[in-house]
Amino acid sequence: MTARPLELHPDRALPTDSNQRTVARTIYDQIKALPLISMHGHVDAQVFAENQPFADPAQLLIVPDHYVCRMLYSQGMRPEQLGIPRVDGGATETDSRAIWRHFCSNWKLFRGTPSRYWLADELGSVFGITEAPSADNADALYDQVAAVLADATFRPQQLLDRFNIELISTTDPAGSQLEHHASLAEQGLGDRVLPTFRPDAVVYLDRADWQASIEALGQASGTDVASYSGYLAALRERRQAFVRTGGLATDHGHFLADTTPLPQQVAAELYQRRFAGGEVSPAEVHAFAAHMLYQMAAMSCEDGLVMQIHPGVLRDHHSGVFAAHGQDKGFDIPFATEYTRALRPLLDAFGMDPRFRCIVFTIDETVYTRELAPMAGVYPAMRLGAPWWFIDSPESMRRFFETATETAGFYNMSGFVDDTRAYCSIPARHDLYRRMSAGYLSRLVTEHRLGEDEAIETAIDLAYNLPKLAYQSRQA
Amino acid sequence: MTARPLELHPDRALPTDSNQRTVARTIYDQIKALPLISMHGHVDAQVFAENQPFADPAQLLIVPDHYVCRMLYSQGMRPEQLGIPRVDGGATETDSRAIWRHFCSNWKLFRGTPSRYWLADELGSVFGITEAPSADNADALYDQVAAVLADATFRPQQLLDRFNIELISTTDPAGSQLEHHASLAEQGLGDRVLPTFRPDAVVYLDRADWQASIEALGQASGTDVASYSGYLAALRERRQAFVRTGGLATDHGHFLADTTPLPQQVAAELYQRRFAGGEVSPAEVHAFAAHMLYQMAAMSCEDGLVMQIHPGVLRDHHSGVFAAHGQDKGFDIPFATEYTRALRPLLDAFGMDPRFRCIVFTIDETVYTRELAPMAGVYPAMRLGAPWWFIDSPESMRRFFETATETAGFYNMSGFVDDTRAYCSIPARHDLYRRMSAGYLSRLVTEHRLGEDEAIETAIDLAYNLPKLAYQSRQA
Amino acid sequence: MTARPLELHPDRALPTDSNQRTVARTIYDQIKALPLISMHGHVDAQVFAENQPFADPAQLLIVPDHYVCRMLYSQGMRPEQLGIPRVDGGATETDSRAIWRHFCSNWKLFRGTPSRYWLADELGSVFGITEAPSADNADALYDQVAAVLADATFRPQQLLDRFNIELISTTDPAGSQLEHHASLAEQGLGDRVLPTFRPDAVVYLDRADWQASIEALGQASGTDVASYSGYLAALRERRQAFVRTGGLATDHGHFLADTTPLPQQVAAELYQRRFAGGEVSPAEVHAFAAHMLYQMAAMSCEDGLVMQIHPGVLRDHHSGVFAAHGQDKGFDIPFATEYTRALRPLLDAFGMDPRFRCIVFTIDETVYTRELAPMAGVYPAMRLGAPWWFIDSPESMRRFFETATETAGFYNMSGFVDDTRAYCSIPARHDLYRRMSAGYLSRLVTEHRLGEDEAIETAIDLAYNLPKLAYQSRQA
Repeated sequence: MTARPLELHPDRALPTDSNQRTVARTIYDQIKALPLISMHGHVDAQVFAENQPFADPAQLLIVPDHYVCRMLYSQGMRPEQLGIPRVDGGATETDSRAIWRHFCSNWKLFRGTPSRYWLADELGSVFGITEAPSADNADALYDQVAAVLADATFRPQQLLDRFNIELISTTDPAGSQLEHHASLAEQGLGDRVLPTFRPDAVVYLDRADWQASIEALGQASGTDVASYSGYLAALRERRQAFVRTGGLATDHGHFLADTTPLPQQVAAELYQRRFAGGEVSPAEVHAFAAHMLYQMAAMSCEDGLVMQIHPGVLRDHHSGVFAAHGQDKGFDIPFATEYTRALRPLLDAFGMDPRFRCIVFTIDETVYTRELAPMAGVYPAMRLGAPWWFIDSPESMRRFFETATETAGFYNMSGFVDDTRAYCSIPARHDLYRRMSAGYLSRLVTEHRLGEDEAIETAIDLAYNLPKLAYQSRQA
Repeated sequence: MTARPLELHPDRALPTDSNQRTVARTIYDQIKALPLISMHGHVDAQVFAENQPFADPAQLLIVPDHYVCRMLYSQGMRPEQLGIPRVDGGATETDSRAIWRHFCSNWKLFRGTPSRYWLADELGSVFGITEAPSADNADALYDQVAAVLADATFRPQQLLDRFNIELISTTDPAGSQLEHHASLAEQGLGDRVLPTFRPDAVVYLDRADWQASIEALGQASGTDVASYSGYLAALRERRQAFVRTGGLATDHGHFLADTTPLPQQVAAELYQRRFAGGEVSPAEVHAFAAHMLYQMAAMSCEDGLVMQIHPGVLRDHHSGVFAAHGQDKGFDIPFATEYTRALRPLLDAFGMDPRFRCIVFTIDETVYTRELAPMAGVYPAMRLGAPWWFIDSPESMRRFFETATETAGFYNMSGFVDDTRAYCSIPARHDLYRRMSAGYLSRLVTEHRLGEDEAIETAIDLAYNLPKLAYQSRQA
Repeated sequence: MTARPLELHPDRALPTDSNQRTVARTIYDQIKALPLISMHGHVDAQVFAENQPFADPAQLLIVPDHYVCRMLYSQGMRPEQLGIPRVDGGATETDSRAIWRHFCSNWKLFRGTPSRYWLADELGSVFGITEAPSADNADALYDQVAAVLADATFRPQQLLDRFNIELISTTDPAGSQLEHHASLAEQGLGDRVLPTFRPDAVVYLDRADWQASIEALGQASGTDVASYSGYLAALRERRQAFVRTGGLATDHGHFLADTTPLPQQVAAELYQRRFAGGEVSPAEVHAFAAHMLYQMAAMSCEDGLVMQIHPGVLRDHHSGVFAAHGQDKGFDIPFATEYTRALRPLLDAFGMDPRFRCIVFTIDETVYTRELAPMAGVYPAMRLGAPWWFIDSPESMRRFFETATETAGFYNMSGFVDDTRAYCSIPARHDLYRRMSAGYLSRLVTEHRLGEDEAIETAIDLAYNLPKLAYQSRQA
């Protein structure tokens, strides 16, 4: 059987209507080459600091990409077959070619998904592949990708230039010593690869790694964290350390968007009880997390770090997979999330504060017209984050513009923010957003709701200026 | 810098696809000149009765339009800078030109919003402006608008003709003496400017103005409202007074859509406790409001007033702005609202009653396919209201037709109902709806799901006949 | 007045854009003639077994179709006028021509609804009607339809061939003796008309027919159902009987999607209390139903029956209509339904089990991107059901593909599953889905997100292969 071609059409993801496509192309041409601002990624700082070559095609593109793995699980493949490590150290597939073959043989499963779009783009644009993956050509494609990976110019730091990345942020725990960022600074990349402060592990009292994370926080900050006030002081100190290392933002992966503060003595008692190894109820866990989100906002008013909020995901939905393979294995499932009441304490206290900025994300699309756009459209401190995770996709982006713009306007959006562990997908993701924004703007133009010159200006803002602005301290 | 033109393209807001646009234009041509039925507005009756000239461009178009103000706040402008009065009488901007300049300088913020669409339409169609607002031309535009406002034909009553308004309704508290409507009747406008009975202030026991509103209700009705039965009698009397003054409808801005009746003695106890200055809990406030919604439906069966229900908004989200500037300042935020169970008591009791009609509105779009269209599609007493407030916008209207029509059909819709404080935006709003309905119907035609003659007939019904019918007493 | 023509355009329901329509037509041409797999219908087994002629146009097309009746109610018609039987045996319309005339006179009410689409298709394709129904031609159309019904080839069994139905399933209570399926087997149709096991009446402890249904279950299974263990044994026995009779699936019309199991002794106590005529609270009713959903999944692991879950409908919303006319009269209203937490116990226990398959349906569209697609996109046991009931419609199907595909992919969908009591609407429903899937796939092609050959392959899978696969036991 002849292989299907892997086509990367220059008009891909642009609107079908020919009048609209003409306008969309004009807009896209003005933004396609703009540098990438990538302020919410999950590439490890160590990867940049050590700048080692990538292992092999499967270890780079398949194993760490939970979008890809989950789709293969959905058709009966087991994590072990894809080389996903077991917590107990048990055997899993070690032959990267075998893993790669599973992926190639199942290429059709990805039809209509953003993974298909990104992977086709990466394979074509980055690796020069011209055939669609299949069982037949799996080995040939493996060799072709492996050859590119072996090239000396294909190292993490060199890719920053190749990918046109102006700014990229890693995500780092509150107790990080930021040693890799120190190394990056020595290598002259301190202004280009920034840390982001992520305190979830020290904020969620029920996390398995809470104790260890608290200890790391104490050590990194040189602060005694046995008391609640010590804990707050340690957080303040680490936030300052992040600021000194170039950090611009914090990131909060909360279950709920709740931001209700507790009376200080209640919060202190809870913290100290947990510190002493006592029991905390699930309700207390959530109440403390909400309280700390409020505290983090208060600290942002002091130090200018931009606050990112990512709520609404039930992590590790399948207990068996979690027990066998740990977190982030594709079994995180969104649920309906309330923002209007949940964010009220935070916005009531800091929403009009000229020192504060928060960017609010959601995976629950229903809240765009109903809750998030109305709040982003009035509170100066709030920006509406780009569609995230499962909804970082063509159809969802289209809906995002259709549902959020009318009430929030374009200028209360963060512009594009990618959220990936898959380093090589970053250009494809930004490019897709640029195409989708050009598509939406082109409809406003052809429906005579916006001038073409305004549309181009707006597209440039969404792709480049707004993300830079959104992550800029308002105190700068 | 040359000013951008303010283009009002004849095909604006019509679909992009050329086949569809041709059909849409044909439909739109048949409806564009139909008279306007404007049965849910917030223009003050006094404005019509006194028929004074409007003050100036900023006081007419900016200060009272919370869509416009909220967008300016979202980018850091303070209410004081826009001349929003302070509750404490503190200083705010008094130079209308300065306020107007803020608006013009920030024109780009409105890109993609309905405000931009309406304002462009008003500025162009009503005021003859041909340049897009900007910092540069702000003063010139101010003068141009001010010149139109000074014209003797630009008075509230004269605009009724100019705007082609056949029927307009004001919104009046339950305790209104309806003196402005009496004056309008004397001036021969009693059949054209109608009152709408809005009892929220006497129904929500926690309103700051409850006591004052109850006193006004007692006075206007000449009834002793110390007892619950007196309260009900007073409401009945005022409803009759509204009917005598030409009123066709009541309007209910509730927090929840709940309509569960209380046992009469529980309701009476609650009312009388509150009347005596006693405490009522938040749960009791909501229970009483739900109970009264049910009572209002029962009274509608007696007097034929059509009941409008507008739930699902958390008012005054920011306590600081509320304390400084009061209600309706752009800080009202929607939230998820349940209707299937909430409306059940009301529909179970009156939904099949041939004397009753209610029109149900929502800002929570998710309920159209799931709850409201299924109920409107079976209960003869219920009509589905047009998209309201934040969703009175091109994209939301498109979605409204796409999500509500298949289950409710067109003939269980209210047709277009505008909801504005901005008098001059009324023609633009109706025109936009007409364009969007023509757009949706044109797709049904080009997809061969509806004949063009049927589409035209339906468009006329949506624009004119259905709104008239929806507000007609079923007892007439 | 000249009658409007009843046009069945060959391109109906295909996209408007001409490039897209060309591709859609190419795809549709490849799937339009594929056999129908109709695995979730509500045509009575007796109708097939006895193969009697249909009574008359109104009794075939109007009276049993609650989509049609509900639309007529919504404009003030009473059930009695449409010949809907009364529980008390009271008088209702008996003149089928009169009922038919009501329908024809109100044809315009159906504009924009799927009923209009299906009925136009049926009237045109099946009955050869060429004029749109109206008051004027009602009698003539009645005669024309009646003449077709009188034809000997227009019997239920003969229609299987005419409609190109390869496989059709009925829905049968747990206590069914399956006598009609036995008769069908004798008539050589045992492999073509299959039973589906529907245990709702023995699972919901508050059903009016619970006691009678439990007795039927006991009798049919030859098991003493006085104890909870006897009840479980009886269910197991009947499931086996369904398997022996060709059954492939179970079906569960639950209020909530909750699947939390109870401790066995709690479940046993509840069952036995109810069996003894004791009181059970609403909370207990739902807890037992959730528990039994979990048990049914466990039994599916044993016997391979595919589990269909249909939650989220509040039945019999109007108590008066229910009291007068009973269930399924068009007054069932959907409500917001939670799946992420609700299905977790079931998916945690059986979601990775290679013996299990469930197909999950919803009428709450908001859950597609947020909950169902993420779960179907990772759990091998789960398939995402087609849009169901009110959302089995052109616009909702379009949205279904737009919201579910990106996360679930096409290959975790059930493909098309119709859900009808209206036998003659089956071909129209499948045809509409095929057109809508061709329409969505054509957009992926014209946006260069999918090859045309891939699109055709996918369309064939959605129309034919996936429904067959979804209902195939994974143990076969």
